[in-house]
Amino acid sequence: MGRASKREDIAQAAFQQFHARGFNATGISDITTAAGVPKGSFYNHFASKDESALEALRRYAASLRFEMLTEEGRPPLDRLRAHFDFLSRDTVDNGFVRGCLVGNLGAEVADHNEEIRRAVKDGFDRWADLIRQVLVEAQDAGDLNPGLDAGATALFVLSAWEGALIATRADKSAAPVDAFFRTVFEVLLR
Amino acid sequence: MGRASKREDIAQAAFQQFHARGFNATGISDITTAAGVPKGSFYNHFASKDESALEALRRYAASLRFEMLTEEGRPPLDRLRAHFDFLSRDTVDNGFVRGCLVGNLGAEVADHNEEIRRAVKDGFDRWADLIRQVLVEAQDAGDLNPGLDAGATALFVLSAWEGALIATRADKSAAPVDAFFRTVFEVLLR
Repeated sequence: MGRASKREDIAQAAFQQFHARGFNATGISDITTAAGVPKGSFYNHFASKDESALEALRRYAASLRFEMLTEEGRPPLDRLRAHFDFLSRDTVDNGFVRGCLVGNLGAEVADHNEEIRRAVKDGFDRWADLIRQVLVEAQDAGDLNPGLDAGATALFVLSAWEGALIATRADKSAAPVDAFFRTVFEVLLR
Repeated sequence: MGRASKREDIAQAAFQQFHARGFNATGISDITTAAGVPKGSFYNHFASKDESALEALRRYAASLRFEMLTEEGRPPLDRLRAHFDFLSRDTVDNGFVRGCLVGNLGAEVADHNEEIRRAVKDGFDRWADLIRQVLVEAQDAGDLNPGLDAGATALFVLSAWEGALIATRADKSAAPVDAFFRTVFEVLLR
């Protein structure tokens, strides 16, 4: 196994382990065991567990298919719904586990690690800004109440999504996610 | 120090440590050091760290002042707003840290510990049901759109609150909490 592919295997294993177990419950040996590499090799590729968590956040963000939000030729609110519908599958179709890595690291680590807090904040900022743009487009198209503050509403919808994932994991049912879709798309964004 | 007061000190320290540090980052010695008792004495009072986390959840729930939601002689939606306003102070006035212990344990532990998952679920269920009752009262009083599904809306508002606390900790600003108040009370619950 070459050096580059070993780094790739460790990075991907770190992403999966942090997402499944959480940050503090994941040891370096959980990552190297999952990657099928000797424990010592972790530090040939990452300076610290923190650094591998930052890389995990980048990988998670890349998996969120933000391009769905800007897809041409589809009404803005349909794109937003398709985006959350896509995201819901990771939690709902997998037995209501894992949730969102950005929110998980926000809840568990942001208070205690400035670098991870900034990465979580940047992740939320980027995501909320994309949602805001969709809402502005919907307002411009006459599909959404022009009196809504698109920025505050985007921030709120993203918070509601993060909370719904936590509640759905605790409930082991889709009820909180269903309440999200119903309230956001049938009541709030009208 | 008597046996009962030692248990009380340990239980209170466990609550504060879990809230401040998270579940996996809190060791038994963090709890006993904070309580000012010898490490070994923890197990005279609690069978396990899990058991002390369940007690912490009970203490946290008791601190949420749910009675504000059922207070007589105040309009239902004013009570709901005062409830979240009270809750926001713990995070916002303390430098945007800690968040909600129910949500934190939901994000960090619910996937991995069935007993804690059930306690988190019970906490959310009880809380959402109190919010649902406030919304029904508001509908009966003609203060809220009678077409809203009170149960789904309550679940949604609670999710949005949990997510707003995570986002506000990551952002180190009140913006996500402000977006919660603005969207819930000026747009959704009209």
